[in-house]
Amino acid sequence: MNVLVIGAHGSVGNLVVDKLQENSQHTPIAMVRKKEQQESFQNQGVKTVLANLEDSIDTLVQAASGADAIVFAAGSGGSTGADKTMFVDLDGAVKSVEAAKKANIDQFVIVSAMGSQQWLEPHPEWLEKLGPYYPAKFYADQWLKNSGLNYTIVRPGLLSDDEAKGKIQVADTPDAFGDQTDITRSDVAQIVVESLANEHTKKKEFDVVNGDTKISEALDQL
Amino acid sequence: MNVLVIGAHGSVGNLVVDKLQENSQHTPIAMVRKKEQQESFQNQGVKTVLANLEDSIDTLVQAASGADAIVFAAGSGGSTGADKTMFVDLDGAVKSVEAAKKANIDQFVIVSAMGSQQWLEPHPEWLEKLGPYYPAKFYADQWLKNSGLNYTIVRPGLLSDDEAKGKIQVADTPDAFGDQTDITRSDVAQIVVESLANEHTKKKEFDVVNGDTKISEALDQL
Repeated sequence: MNVLVIGAHGSVGNLVVDKLQENSQHTPIAMVRKKEQQESFQNQGVKTVLANLEDSIDTLVQAASGADAIVFAAGSGGSTGADKTMFVDLDGAVKSVEAAKKANIDQFVIVSAMGSQQWLEPHPEWLEKLGPYYPAKFYADQWLKNSGLNYTIVRPGLLSDDEAKGKIQVADTPDAFGDQTDITRSDVAQIVVESLANEHTKKKEFDVVNGDTKISEALDQL
Repeated sequence: MNVLVIGAHGSVGNLVVDKLQENSQHTPIAMVRKKEQQESFQNQGVKTVLANLEDSIDTLVQAASGADAIVFAAGSGGSTGADKTMFVDLDGAVKSVEAAKKANIDQFVIVSAMGSQQWLEPHPEWLEKLGPYYPAKFYADQWLKNSGLNYTIVRPGLLSDDEAKGKIQVADTPDAFGDQTDITRSDVAQIVVESLANEHTKKKEFDVVNGDTKISEALDQL
């Protein structure tokens, strides 16, 4: 499967690209904004495409040309302003979904954020702490769910750079996890990659943190 | 009809309240954030309710208690940050729609912005000029359209404080208007009020600027 990774230069996206590159079933296409980022991927033998999420949908359709699936792992991050939260985390995701539809790419995996599905419901206080980030993720995920695409919405807990554990727990809400709040970026990337080839993840959404179940088994049980 | 006006202290919202108050068919309920605003309406004999769009949906349901229709005329304005664009123009509108559904209020009129429906399409450059404002309006309107409510989406052009003209032109896109780009706030408020009692405006959306057709006639032709 040829997989366009949007946000390939980000911390999770980069790991997704690595894992796709190591996997004989898949070929990553790293979508990046800057020439320098492009060169760094090319030096590792990774296909790249230069495009900006703030460009038009048609630009993204072109970027997605030849892809069989899209992974959306982009995020504006904490150091940019709230306008970028709108333009990248929400609008960038929506435009990527629309580009997938236009390019007849049926499969779309998005890296979301634990608990964001509770945005419009009574929710824990920490959901208010990142300003417009959680609503942006919520509205993006809603758009994807209404798109008709074969979506997988992965909502990881607090991301850590620890070594991969290989074991996770999944649930519909964060309450199910008790004191466990985090997950390694490497495990998130592994979940994304395995979701591409696992039928049980189609049209599914889940919160996920590290736990006691092997990733493949946890995904099989979705 | 009892009409909850959200954003009653804003420039258009205030005029909507005035016109509802003058109209024997309607009773406005001015929703405002601050005590001072509340007192100023009470001194004019206008019913008020104190609530903040950044509060929960349930708070808004309470605020809407007894209303037969909701007018959403709130806007974060140009002097606040992009986080408020997310929280007021987008999230505030979405929560108001959800509150309407919960409170069994079927009719919802929103003051949107000319051209915002073109956000995901090729669009004129000026749609990029207000940062996250146009996408916020776009996503809010999309949510309303998908809500099942009897919506009217009024997308006025550039707002002016000139005296009411009483005559407008409506269209599906701003291109239809040629050089005419503006409309008085008073005429926008009049359109909102007339929409409440005009069956032709149900499940309709339109761009509008001043023109040659009487407001009631223009709405009858929707």
